[in-house]
Amino acid sequence: MAVYTQCSAEDIEAFLEDFNVGKLRMAKGIAEGVQNSNYLIETDQNRFILTLYEGSVNPDDLPYFHELTAHLANKKLVVPAAIPNKSGAVVNELCGRPACLIQFLSGISVSEPTPAHCTSVGAVLAQLHLAAADFPMTRRNDHSLPDWRLLAAKVSGQTDAIDPALGPLIEATLSQLATSWPTDLPCGAIHADLFPDNVLFSGTNISGLIDFYFACSDFYAYDLAVLINSWVFSADGHQFFADRCDALIQGYQSVRNLTPMEKKNFGVLCKGAALRFVLTRTHDWINTPATAFVTRKDPLAFVRRLRWFQKNDIAL
Amino acid sequence: MAVYTQCSAEDIEAFLEDFNVGKLRMAKGIAEGVQNSNYLIETDQNRFILTLYEGSVNPDDLPYFHELTAHLANKKLVVPAAIPNKSGAVVNELCGRPACLIQFLSGISVSEPTPAHCTSVGAVLAQLHLAAADFPMTRRNDHSLPDWRLLAAKVSGQTDAIDPALGPLIEATLSQLATSWPTDLPCGAIHADLFPDNVLFSGTNISGLIDFYFACSDFYAYDLAVLINSWVFSADGHQFFADRCDALIQGYQSVRNLTPMEKKNFGVLCKGAALRFVLTRTHDWINTPATAFVTRKDPLAFVRRLRWFQKNDIAL
Repeated sequence: MAVYTQCSAEDIEAFLEDFNVGKLRMAKGIAEGVQNSNYLIETDQNRFILTLYEGSVNPDDLPYFHELTAHLANKKLVVPAAIPNKSGAVVNELCGRPACLIQFLSGISVSEPTPAHCTSVGAVLAQLHLAAADFPMTRRNDHSLPDWRLLAAKVSGQTDAIDPALGPLIEATLSQLATSWPTDLPCGAIHADLFPDNVLFSGTNISGLIDFYFACSDFYAYDLAVLINSWVFSADGHQFFADRCDALIQGYQSVRNLTPMEKKNFGVLCKGAALRFVLTRTHDWINTPATAFVTRKDPLAFVRRLRWFQKNDIAL
Repeated sequence: MAVYTQCSAEDIEAFLEDFNVGKLRMAKGIAEGVQNSNYLIETDQNRFILTLYEGSVNPDDLPYFHELTAHLANKKLVVPAAIPNKSGAVVNELCGRPACLIQFLSGISVSEPTPAHCTSVGAVLAQLHLAAADFPMTRRNDHSLPDWRLLAAKVSGQTDAIDPALGPLIEATLSQLATSWPTDLPCGAIHADLFPDNVLFSGTNISGLIDFYFACSDFYAYDLAVLINSWVFSADGHQFFADRCDALIQGYQSVRNLTPMEKKNFGVLCKGAALRFVLTRTHDWINTPATAFVTRKDPLAFVRRLRWFQKNDIAL
């Protein structure tokens, strides 16, 4: 949530000389994106986001992300397309970092989605899945069950400081998922991280889907399970909102019907998605000093979701 | 250089309901301003900066800053005027902080000013001084000689870790300034911190003067000495650029001639301005952990300027 690499206006002006986008008029470092540096810039022609990749994104993955957003943009989804420079290159370099000039999308992210927002986001996720069906590239989900096991091993023995029940819960859930995780569901390119801060709205209409840096090939229904985890609970996980959940599922199925196998496995997928964020947040919590400027996200917010999914089913 | 208070779009929407500025379309936290939180926001009518004051600015001083920018804006200086809400109030509250909605000014800040930039900034500072002459409010400069003594006492004994010569240099300069600091020069409202990052350009034309949170009543020529310190040296203080300096002084005097007394005292004012930044940077350096996310600014960059002013005179 900060600008890690400080670029001067002169640096950005020189970078833009390789593009046909006009002359720089404004550049503001924006506190957005967890681990990249982002500038909102304006030329005499248009506005753009200029992203510098700070190491958490593997530069080898950038072509996948950019081809995917180009593919989706072609199919009229409101995703930010990367802008090629005069030589056609999308990934360039600025201040020693891989850097991309990206289409700017207006809109605001909601913190407390209404059911109307949830209907919209459910529908757009299904549109994304249909539009991605003929996308030819693939990328392994590096936050999936085998990776959760590795992450669990890494944090093992250090979770008691957060909550003594956390370690046993992680182990029990991993054992359960090992025997129940589905192997054959409709799959393709998914966003995998479509939290409210990655969706821009104009009113209740979606004006942008952003931050595709976790996009990968996995089950469509898993992407929907991530959405359920991130849109239909209070941020701290204490409250489940049935009206938001119904609206979200109804929005999704208004565009793409879940198959019987997807419905059957949906509870397991929801638990897996909750565990994914329990594990990454636990890992980050342990590895971020309490005094660091970056805000640590509470792993227990997703422990509460996981426990909810252990006791309840989503109506499909 | 970060957003300290996270406001949701809903918080900002609710805040804007008290203003006649239209409906929120975009809100981005921007990494700007040393100790405030700033959002660049856009409504269907216009763009604005939304500033939340985080404690380093005394809320009692806000009326001075806002009246001054209103006064200067009235006289056609490109300064950001604060926007009153429907009840006429300029300082309101958002997320538990005093907050102001401020006019957005486009433009970019240069890191390596050319002589043409320096001519422009010299001229605009003189315009600011002329325009401020009939501004009726006053505010004591709380970064002036008596405050430097207090700051020097605070850092005393802790400067060796930065440079063993730093402590003696501070003491010697303070003694020298005690007997040479002028008491009667033309004075009025000054900006007091017009570094390159507080000036926005469109080409070499000035499109904005921002960040008036050090503005105060003091000698006009001291404001010019701050400008000399911040525009005509390399950032690290190793290099003095005579062409920038000549252009800056010529730009200033094209609008307002320095008096003989201002010229006579200018060397002392330049040393004082250098010491002011040596002291605040030394204090911040000692009080900012090296691991903190905030970038510490090197006090030695201004020690080098101070030493330059000890050996050289500015041609006036």
